[in-house]
Amino acid sequence: MTTESQSLCTRSMQAPSSHHRRAWCPSFKLREVASMYCTMVAIFFIILVAALQGTAPSENHFPYKVPLDPEGILELSWNISYTEEVICFQLLIKELKYGVIFGMSDRGEFENADLVVLWSDGKNSYFGDAWTDAKGQIHLDSQQDYQLLKAQKTFGGLLLLFKRPISTHDPRDYLIEDDTVHLVYGFLDEPFPSLEAINTSAIQKGLQRVQLLKPNISKPTLPPDLENMEITAPNIIIPNQETTYWCYIKELPDHFSRHHIVMYEPIITKGNEALVHHMEVFQCAAEIEKVPHFNGTCDSKMKPEKLNHCRHVLAAWALGAKPFYYPEEAGLPFGGPGSSKFLRLEVHYHNPLELKGLHDSSGLRLHYTSTLRPFDAGIMELGLVYTPVMAIPPKETDFILTGYCTDKCTKLALPQSGIHIFASQLHTHLTGRKVITVLAREGRVTEIVNRDNHYSPHFQEIRKLKKIVTVLPGDVLITSCTYNTEDRKLATVGGFSITEEMCVNYIHYYPQTQLELCKSAVDLGYLQKYFRLINSFNNEDNGNYSNSSVKEQFASVSWNSFSRDVLKSLYDFAPISMHCNKSSAVRFPGEWERQPLPEIKVGLEEVTPQCQTTPGLSPASPALVNIDGKKG
Amino acid sequence: MTTESQSLCTRSMQAPSSHHRRAWCPSFKLREVASMYCTMVAIFFIILVAALQGTAPSENHFPYKVPLDPEGILELSWNISYTEEVICFQLLIKELKYGVIFGMSDRGEFENADLVVLWSDGKNSYFGDAWTDAKGQIHLDSQQDYQLLKAQKTFGGLLLLFKRPISTHDPRDYLIEDDTVHLVYGFLDEPFPSLEAINTSAIQKGLQRVQLLKPNISKPTLPPDLENMEITAPNIIIPNQETTYWCYIKELPDHFSRHHIVMYEPIITKGNEALVHHMEVFQCAAEIEKVPHFNGTCDSKMKPEKLNHCRHVLAAWALGAKPFYYPEEAGLPFGGPGSSKFLRLEVHYHNPLELKGLHDSSGLRLHYTSTLRPFDAGIMELGLVYTPVMAIPPKETDFILTGYCTDKCTKLALPQSGIHIFASQLHTHLTGRKVITVLAREGRVTEIVNRDNHYSPHFQEIRKLKKIVTVLPGDVLITSCTYNTEDRKLATVGGFSITEEMCVNYIHYYPQTQLELCKSAVDLGYLQKYFRLINSFNNEDNGNYSNSSVKEQFASVSWNSFSRDVLKSLYDFAPISMHCNKSSAVRFPGEWERQPLPEIKVGLEEVTPQCQTTPGLSPASPALVNIDGKKG
Repeated sequence: MTTESQSLCTRSMQAPSSHHRRAWCPSFKLREVASMYCTMVAIFFIILVAALQGTAPSENHFPYKVPLDPEGILELSWNISYTEEVICFQLLIKELKYGVIFGMSDRGEFENADLVVLWSDGKNSYFGDAWTDAKGQIHLDSQQDYQLLKAQKTFGGLLLLFKRPISTHDPRDYLIEDDTVHLVYGFLDEPFPSLEAINTSAIQKGLQRVQLLKPNISKPTLPPDLENMEITAPNIIIPNQETTYWCYIKELPDHFSRHHIVMYEPIITKGNEALVHHMEVFQCAAEIEKVPHFNGTCDSKMKPEKLNHCRHVLAAWALGAKPFYYPEEAGLPFGGPGSSKFLRLEVHYHNPLELKGLHDSSGLRLHYTSTLRPFDAGIMELGLVYTPVMAIPPKETDFILTGYCTDKCTKLALPQSGIHIFASQLHTHLTGRKVITVLAREGRVTEIVNRDNHYSPHFQEIRKLKKIVTVLPGDVLITSCTYNTEDRKLATVGGFSITEEMCVNYIHYYPQTQLELCKSAVDLGYLQKYFRLINSFNNEDNGNYSNSSVKEQFASVSWNSFSRDVLKSLYDFAPISMHCNKSSAVRFPGEWERQPLPEIKVGLEEVTPQCQTTPGLSPASPALVNIDGKKG
Repeated sequence: MTTESQSLCTRSMQAPSSHHRRAWCPSFKLREVASMYCTMVAIFFIILVAALQGTAPSENHFPYKVPLDPEGILELSWNISYTEEVICFQLLIKELKYGVIFGMSDRGEFENADLVVLWSDGKNSYFGDAWTDAKGQIHLDSQQDYQLLKAQKTFGGLLLLFKRPISTHDPRDYLIEDDTVHLVYGFLDEPFPSLEAINTSAIQKGLQRVQLLKPNISKPTLPPDLENMEITAPNIIIPNQETTYWCYIKELPDHFSRHHIVMYEPIITKGNEALVHHMEVFQCAAEIEKVPHFNGTCDSKMKPEKLNHCRHVLAAWALGAKPFYYPEEAGLPFGGPGSSKFLRLEVHYHNPLELKGLHDSSGLRLHYTSTLRPFDAGIMELGLVYTPVMAIPPKETDFILTGYCTDKCTKLALPQSGIHIFASQLHTHLTGRKVITVLAREGRVTEIVNRDNHYSPHFQEIRKLKKIVTVLPGDVLITSCTYNTEDRKLATVGGFSITEEMCVNYIHYYPQTQLELCKSAVDLGYLQKYFRLINSFNNEDNGNYSNSSVKEQFASVSWNSFSRDVLKSLYDFAPISMHCNKSSAVRFPGEWERQPLPEIKVGLEEVTPQCQTTPGLSPASPALVNIDGKKG
């Protein structure tokens, strides 16, 4: 029995048992006739499973793990079977009162969420697949796609094991894709007579972001001469404030020769798993001879200005991410001549409970080899130039800005055999909500390089691509970001400040080329025509605006349907200024101003999820849960 | 048996037999298990029905009838049961060779069409529910929603009786709505071994437009003192050309006093049923004392200019339309002082085979009473003013222009208790594809007055509304037309010419008010700003355009994504000039220039058709048809 229940969450099984159950639940009138029988079978099945009291599946069954709440009371582990199209969750509840809520929603809200709920009426405990409506009211789902496999008390707490198909075809369920997923959780501190009686606005709850569907890539073998270097915070005390970005400068050893980083992994100080949100290691610019040592918050007034020249990403990790492996044929070069000795570690601590006096030595461990691999890996910036000419009007819910890497630039800068993108890190500032980069060849969008429809600026990680994307000379790369400026009063312009915006995709690729930056922005002359036109339409002062900055001109626009629509039309039409650069300052030779927008004749062919109900799934009644079993 | 087969196509039956069959066809695995049984039941059922050789259902079972082809070889009759949600067709095939195709498609094309096919392989005949893909290739539909009820040889030809649910939930089927339906037909002149072998591009085929779903309105009782007057062509010879508009002036008798038209009906000369496409009776303007008698084509050079003053619609009929009844409480006034004695009959003959020497005396019979009803009925024009400022760029597939009847105008012109719209005639010129009028109250769209998503300028009829719409003072009426200018090289501007465009809804309502015209157009000053802006963006001659007409200025615009998008934005934003008129020349007092667009906060709430497969319908195999039965 134990083996059977375990195998439901491993990849070895061929036919999940739900298939068998489906066959016994026909639809329409026969369904009614047979419903009593179906219900009996289902109840028997659930009681049977819930009564199983075996040992927990061993750790390696759940390669992924994140704490959900800041105190780490709820801990989620999961695994994915792409062959069975099932995702299996293990929720460890360290302190159980009267139940917990776990689920997913568009951006972490408790409205329109897809939930599983474990609740108690004071006597019995129940488990059900539920959803919330637009007002946050919980309802039992008519199609029970989350299937409870086990509920077991252990010394560590209650373990809940449940699974669901990756794709359920139930419009009430969250569509799990390979981008950011906003997990939501809540604690039930009192008994509830029914699921509907739970008031989600009154409970302690929160959200956690994670990439649930990690790509199914086999680990490359590591070279035998692997060495490693830990870039960690030097036992600092985490400030008792919600958000801290900690900066620490680390110097490479003298005469450190050229190496290839082939893997890196996180080091998290035990106990701080819920506090360390993300970490990045940057290399400083080679031109800066001496970067002063520093150990403090990144926004400190004491932070030396020179640290701003440490922007070249070497490694990045975010909550839930596993060790990052380079493809077998490539490594990221560091060390040696022409490479700075100085590294900057940045750790983002998320401490919403403002806990005091916690020591931390988290960071990243870089694994590198002196036996250089066939190819140097490189990082290239796609998207928009950091300039105020690209702006988002205020009060927009989904305004799109697009940056281009044109055929002219890729023809000039890429080798004949192309480059191979294996990972990508998307980046915007605070109003970014979605990011996508597509590849277009001969006027036709052929591939998605990377897409996040639930992008959060608070959750940026380097993601391995499911499939390496090859970019040939003459290809076009188009990066679009969707912004929400509902809470802004003035236009949000492009720029470096956190209140300004960016639209960037850092692609990780090999072989390295001279092209570091392939980005665009609208032509300034056309933008000036836009300002003149809009001011004339709005019957405003037609004076000479040439003395005002672009940011000031955007600030003076009256935002109405016309000025909004025409700005969109302008960005879809006007020629662009291309940055086809060897470094942020040096362009490839050529004419890059007033370039035509790439012509895309055939857009992305989206596969719309099949809209089909699957009658015959579990009938809509919660499962009775036996959680008084023997201790593990 | 005969009674049973007939009752399948009448309104008296409560439970259509398909319901019973569904119950025996469960889904998924059980379906497979039971499929043999289901197939057997279905085949037995079809053979049983097909073998029935009773008399044809009597004429009054099929209130609606149209010829499909110009020679009248195919004649379609139909009835609708709104309670059973079924539409029943009777196709009379006067000369059968090896089969016929009948069906529906978006605009009458043979691609993406929903079809029934009767075909013969030389030995047996088959009937099946089919569809064509985007290339016109025929496929058997996996869901057989058209159900053959009878195939019977009579002296008049072969009668095919079949039905389908109004809504099938099959994405391959045409969604029948209460607007124009483009029926398609084709003749099979040779045997085909299979359905897939039929090459639709090589067969004789055509289209016919009709409103299939007529509203279910009970006939009002007619007054006892009913008189009638026939306005008919005086035994003319139909010209042997595809399209003829015939004009004929008829004078009312001397001292003809004020009457109410309460009903009118078509008179079609026998044998010309397929040639008479539509007919209208207009009253001339009362100001014109003497209109010369005329009998000839409307585009004749001999036609007196004064006939252009006969534009006030009294009655209109188009193919497939039944007699038009006014609501019991209202009638259309004509005769008496202040009303012209002259009526203009216009008959549109559609003679694609260019038949020669056919005599015709078709027309309309007006039924009227001298006992005036409580309310005079009126006709009001909604939509766009006939002005070139409203224009459609060339090469557009679905460009929308919108005209408004504002709250300010309805407040001024409508009585406190409002007006009641009971019928509507939509009108555009050649590029019109869709027309809709909605009613908005307090910023919220509350009702559709009339909508045609398959509108054709070649099929304009006065349609009774399913439900009378009451318009109160302060309400807003918004009329939008969608145009297709793919075949145009220059912008299509608004105007009277057939190559210019209109967007009009003639609403028929009571009680009559002084308001004859409630239409709008964009403010000319804002349009001039648009021209200046676009010319500056396109770097064109910035000269003074004030000497050019609006039509010339539109002709000189360079059409690209920007000039197209900005024109749309302009029409969605710029203030309007309102025509809130007592007659085409006299405005109600008030300020009507530079009026703000009505603010619509909540748009139309569309009920999206439920996307759900209905497993358990007839399995996908054609039905064997026995058509060698005894002669009727």
